[in-house]
Amino acid sequence: PPYLDLDRLEARAREQLPASVYDYYAGGAETETTMAEAPASWRSWRLRPRVLRGTARVRLGTELLGTPVRTPIGIAPWAYQGMAHPDGELATARGAAARGALMTVSTSATHTLEEVAAAADGPQWFQLYRLHSNRHTDDLARRAGDAGYRALVLTVDVPLLGRRRRDLRHRFALPAGLRMANHPPEGDQPTLSDLATATWTFDDIARFGELSGLPVIVKGVLRGDDAARCVQAGASAVWVSTHGGRQVDPAIASAHALPEVVEAVGADVEIYADGGIRTGSDVLTALALGASAVFLGRPCVWGLATGGADGVAGVLAGLGEELTHTMALCGLDDVRSVPRDTITPAR
Amino acid sequence: PPYLDLDRLEARAREQLPASVYDYYAGGAETETTMAEAPASWRSWRLRPRVLRGTARVRLGTELLGTPVRTPIGIAPWAYQGMAHPDGELATARGAAARGALMTVSTSATHTLEEVAAAADGPQWFQLYRLHSNRHTDDLARRAGDAGYRALVLTVDVPLLGRRRRDLRHRFALPAGLRMANHPPEGDQPTLSDLATATWTFDDIARFGELSGLPVIVKGVLRGDDAARCVQAGASAVWVSTHGGRQVDPAIASAHALPEVVEAVGADVEIYADGGIRTGSDVLTALALGASAVFLGRPCVWGLATGGADGVAGVLAGLGEELTHTMALCGLDDVRSVPRDTITPAR
Amino acid sequence: PPYLDLDRLEARAREQLPASVYDYYAGGAETETTMAEAPASWRSWRLRPRVLRGTARVRLGTELLGTPVRTPIGIAPWAYQGMAHPDGELATARGAAARGALMTVSTSATHTLEEVAAAADGPQWFQLYRLHSNRHTDDLARRAGDAGYRALVLTVDVPLLGRRRRDLRHRFALPAGLRMANHPPEGDQPTLSDLATATWTFDDIARFGELSGLPVIVKGVLRGDDAARCVQAGASAVWVSTHGGRQVDPAIASAHALPEVVEAVGADVEIYADGGIRTGSDVLTALALGASAVFLGRPCVWGLATGGADGVAGVLAGLGEELTHTMALCGLDDVRSVPRDTITPAR
Amino acid sequence: PPYLDLDRLEARAREQLPASVYDYYAGGAETETTMAEAPASWRSWRLRPRVLRGTARVRLGTELLGTPVRTPIGIAPWAYQGMAHPDGELATARGAAARGALMTVSTSATHTLEEVAAAADGPQWFQLYRLHSNRHTDDLARRAGDAGYRALVLTVDVPLLGRRRRDLRHRFALPAGLRMANHPPEGDQPTLSDLATATWTFDDIARFGELSGLPVIVKGVLRGDDAARCVQAGASAVWVSTHGGRQVDPAIASAHALPEVVEAVGADVEIYADGGIRTGSDVLTALALGASAVFLGRPCVWGLATGGADGVAGVLAGLGEELTHTMALCGLDDVRSVPRDTITPAR
Ligand SMILES: Cc1cc2nc3c(=O)[nH]c(=O)nc-3n(C[C@H](O)[C@H](O)[C@H](O)COP(=O)(O)O)c2cc1C
Ligand SMILES: Cc1cc2nc3c(=O)[nH]c(=O)nc-3n(C[C@H](O)[C@H](O)[C@H](O)COP(=O)(O)O)c2cc1C
Ligand SMILES: Cc1cc2nc3c(=O)[nH]c(=O)nc-3n(C[C@H](O)[C@H](O)[C@H](O)COP(=O)(O)O)c2cc1C
Ligand SMILES: Cc1cc2nc3c(=O)[nH]c(=O)nc-3n(C[C@H](O)[C@H](O)[C@H](O)COP(=O)(O)O)c2cc1C
Repeated sequence: PPYLDLDRLEARAREQLPASVYDYYAGGAETETTMAEAPASWRSWRLRPRVLRGTARVRLGTELLGTPVRTPIGIAPWAYQGMAHPDGELATARGAAARGALMTVSTSATHTLEEVAAAADGPQWFQLYRLHSNRHTDDLARRAGDAGYRALVLTVDVPLLGRRRRDLRHRFALPAGLRMANHPPEGDQPTLSDLATATWTFDDIARFGELSGLPVIVKGVLRGDDAARCVQAGASAVWVSTHGGRQVDPAIASAHALPEVVEAVGADVEIYADGGIRTGSDVLTALALGASAVFLGRPCVWGLATGGADGVAGVLAGLGEELTHTMALCGLDDVRSVPRDTITPAR
Repeated sequence: PPYLDLDRLEARAREQLPASVYDYYAGGAETETTMAEAPASWRSWRLRPRVLRGTARVRLGTELLGTPVRTPIGIAPWAYQGMAHPDGELATARGAAARGALMTVSTSATHTLEEVAAAADGPQWFQLYRLHSNRHTDDLARRAGDAGYRALVLTVDVPLLGRRRRDLRHRFALPAGLRMANHPPEGDQPTLSDLATATWTFDDIARFGELSGLPVIVKGVLRGDDAARCVQAGASAVWVSTHGGRQVDPAIASAHALPEVVEAVGADVEIYADGGIRTGSDVLTALALGASAVFLGRPCVWGLATGGADGVAGVLAGLGEELTHTMALCGLDDVRSVPRDTITPAR
Repeated sequence: PPYLDLDRLEARAREQLPASVYDYYAGGAETETTMAEAPASWRSWRLRPRVLRGTARVRLGTELLGTPVRTPIGIAPWAYQGMAHPDGELATARGAAARGALMTVSTSATHTLEEVAAAADGPQWFQLYRLHSNRHTDDLARRAGDAGYRALVLTVDVPLLGRRRRDLRHRFALPAGLRMANHPPEGDQPTLSDLATATWTFDDIARFGELSGLPVIVKGVLRGDDAARCVQAGASAVWVSTHGGRQVDPAIASAHALPEVVEAVGADVEIYADGGIRTGSDVLTALALGASAVFLGRPCVWGLATGGADGVAGVLAGLGEELTHTMALCGLDDVRSVPRDTITPAR
Repeated sequence: PPYLDLDRLEARAREQLPASVYDYYAGGAETETTMAEAPASWRSWRLRPRVLRGTARVRLGTELLGTPVRTPIGIAPWAYQGMAHPDGELATARGAAARGALMTVSTSATHTLEEVAAAADGPQWFQLYRLHSNRHTDDLARRAGDAGYRALVLTVDVPLLGRRRRDLRHRFALPAGLRMANHPPEGDQPTLSDLATATWTFDDIARFGELSGLPVIVKGVLRGDDAARCVQAGASAVWVSTHGGRQVDPAIASAHALPEVVEAVGADVEIYADGGIRTGSDVLTALALGASAVFLGRPCVWGLATGGADGVAGVLAGLGEELTHTMALCGLDDVRSVPRDTITPAR
């Protein structure tokens, strides 16, 4: 149709993909409550348009940690993109670059971080997981700095994997023929002292900053107090996320956690949000609540699965158009200064 | 049936009209959230009837900007009435006049503003859009004054057209044989300086007042601060509206914006409201919230499509009867003084 | 079934009655919002049972305006009982007397007020409507006093009849063979001065008290300020009611109006409530909110239609049993002193 | 499936059991409102996970009234377990012991309290009902002390049995071949003075403590004031419960009553909760609200019916795994110190 129809896009992707792959992408943890609530939580706000402002042209461009982007809508890191399209992360990178959008590349990619960095010249961040030996993880951080990534995203909401019932049912595993390209060579095993430090702590923020030489973003924060501690510990930005409802369930929605994070650290650092962003007005709501940018997970999955790089670019373009249009109708012309009173709670 | 059944009226209209025309009339912007919520938002209030008041006869008559009307229920401006009935706006004008109701005539009419003014002797307002060259728009304002309209309604919620998915799907266009009667002659093009001033500003309120010699009403206001600025800028009245949910989506409902507009400017100017008004109790709720009058969009569309002038008059009569009845049962006898405490939030 | 199943009772009544009669009994005004919300509004409270109170026997008996009754659950006045059962009001009177419950007899009965008074020796109130000439209405009040009724119930929520769509569709009228037994002889017409005073005022309360020699109850009050004025004007009790959702729609529910009425006049007079009472816990909720008694409309209609006097008695017995049981489980033993904190808002 | 699927477990149990037995287990009182709301009420809270806490291993072990248990998820007392499985309470006891979980044994068991105590060496409490003569009831309390039970649970929400419509319809009775093992010999009848004291009072708490030599837990408390009186009267713990929605209906949900009980007595005694606990996050929510332990009713019924001791152990294991997982994802490692701010109201 002559507008972005995400439901239809998902339906088409579902037809093309094996059920276990579709479910891996589409599913969430436990009862999938948090996943289901995410889009609705953005829509628990209503817009309060301004009139007679003489607004001419809407500007979507902004800077994120000093990197110029053409849109505040970026691509969240998601794993195993080779299952969705033969070119996997390379296609996503090209789609993002075509729209001037930031792409976040997952540790669990099916191409190496250097390959994705080389695939397109758009701005990219590298997302780091604690999956392997400390040595290998440190190595990934250093390689990200070397490969030209603009920031390191520490995903902290996976001390262990969420219990995703669909995947447990399918006994999901990466299909044959695809590689975990950033995983260590077979022989590499966590040492005893690796296992002693079971998960990351706030100290790791500064450490990874030094290792990579990059600003560090902490992804997966849902509390104001945690956000403040991240900033004290050296984080350049905080990314409010429930990991697409794939980890804690039923966790508070990003849209409901965002205000307390903004209140706790708003003046000091950039704040991003993701989870259930599906329309231009969802984006505008997040910006009004204090986010500098938002990120898309599943919408880009369906774009990639159905159209490769073009599919990804199409999703970004469609949502960008909705955002532009809605801002113009609301008398706003700059994503960098969306007033808080643009929104009011729905009743 | 022996009472006004709007659902049935709409169903009959739907049967008669081409799908693309029905959808043009019935549809809203984006996900149609605002449109869907409009009727429900009036019904988020409950009535608190008064007893033993000896109420005898209910008076619906009032004055709007000095013009006497027999009912506080007017007809909102809506475009392309020729698609609904061969007589288009002329029939609506006759239906309105038959009931002593105010009619607002759209710029996007299929008869010229002079033709509609001449069609009936009921009170009329002219609604102005910023669609053309400044010269032509100014000209429409002057002609409205000359043609005997009682006020000029500036619709300010269309800096650009809302994204109505139904219309995008149908690639909706005015059917052959119908003319945009108030549009300029083919040759007229916006000048470069027209385009420089992309949308109206508060200054245009006074300017159009002078051009037309008429009181100016600003239609499409949803915020108290905007309403106050309109009044400061010379508006005689403010019309709270979401444009039937056809522009910003999801915008705050008129019923929820009305109280803050009343609070901001209530004492100084008249306030009107529209959007989802479907019953006499909806009207009473709007009056209790501080509106001096309400306006109907789609109900009159269905009336016109199914019954021409009589259909329009029938809708006005039906709602008027419901309003009279409900007021009498609530111990109220005058639409000009409905106490605020007639209503309480539904639970 | 071995418990009171009101849904089943209504279904059976529906099978037996002509559609227009069933709809007359079952229906409400306008969109039937108030009617539909009534039962739900009592259930917007939850019970907070007390334990270890050593409660032995629950007493349902109380006094209403000095008249002893065996249960706080009375029968509301409802019209045209002859359509439901050949014995009409006489059967209802017998059913009520069998359970020691108060019966309120409607002006619109199909037996004269004297006939109903003579039909059983249970306590009865007479409900007065303003339907006829002042002379005839005054006469009814006097006759009620003479016939042994214990109080006069002025129904003040019918300055004119609610618009009940089902009845309008059926063009409902009293079936042939039934008489409006309390109506004046054919010749009696309202005089010009009757028509001048279109509805009752607060002054009529004292006037009817004197005419009848009975305490006066005002039925149909939904506001605290109105309740206070009724008491000042001489009312002995106030009856909170939406007339079963048959008059103003959408009016505030009785359950939501009751607290403000109690707050306004609680200490001074007795307060009753009706509308949507369907379970023993609904009754207990009303008592906790400050009602001295509750009244049943439709449940008794279905009881009468399906079982005559026994059917009515069965409904009263069934609800009484539920009330007894629930009170015992809540550690309460006396309907005359149900603490307010027995309930808390549902969430 | 490779995770605990309680809906499926219940469906399988339903297939195996006679309808009247299934309904006895599954049903609640009156309109089953309280029963239906119980699971939803725990889910009216959302989790606020903590990140970067370096959490290593989650410990589920705790002490309840001084008795060590391996999990804060215990088994609530439920009657007539012989209908679900030939080994009845003995199987449940073995399943509980296998997981180190506390089992509460009902007075209405199909094996004597001594038999159940001997069936497994896990920690057990005995639940006392007031069903018989005072002499027999006192005797049960003494026998519980002698048999090695660690505490006596006085169930105080059954001054009389709730009206369970399903059971009334089935005319439910214990199937032939099963015995009420803790009931008195046939000849034992309540004396006149037994009947005079119709239900227990607060004084019975201390009395039963002395008779049994055990700490006394009061089960079925839903109010803060009642909880405080229980503690003053000598209770060692308070168990917040609606009896699975089988007594008062519509009673406040345990999840909504728990906070006021914690507020009233939290510092002084242990508090437990049950009713609608179905997921690990429900357990975590209860702990965050101040409970020291939670108890399962129906989930264990379905476990026993479908798998005997193993079925019971499987339910305990499944929920324990969910709790462990959710706690780890929330950055928590000890069930004995779950901070209140782990949860926030859902919106
Ligand atoms: C299939 C899938 C895989 C994901 N893989 C990762 C990942 O490797 N690293 C990460 O930080 N987040 C990952 N996420 C979470 C996303 O970055 C993002 O937080 C989430 O998808 C946003 O929600 P949305 O899908 O509703 O837009 C994944 C999400 C999905 C749906
Ligand atoms: C088919 C249609 C066309 C409309 N055209 C105009 C218009 O030309 N000018 C204008 O100011 N408003 C226009 N409106 C908005 C109406 O004036 C009014 O705000 C709205 O219809 C009220 O909501 P309702 O349809 O729910 O009653 C239009 C609305 C509809 C439904
Ligand atoms: C069929 C019917 C007829 C009624 N007739 C009268 C009447 O004659 N006088 C009166 O005061 N109220 C009348 N009522 C209102 C009842 O007294 C009472 O307020 C209402 O029925 C209570 O609500 P319920 O039906 O939900 O229990 C009538 C109600 C019904 C349903
Ligand atoms: C079939 C059944 C029988 C029960 N029997 C008893 C009992 O004998 N004694 C008692 O104190 N509670 C009894 N209960 C209540 C439970 O102890 C517990 O409070 C309730 O089941 C918890 O709710 P849930 O079933 O939603 O987990 C019973 C509950 C059920 C479902």
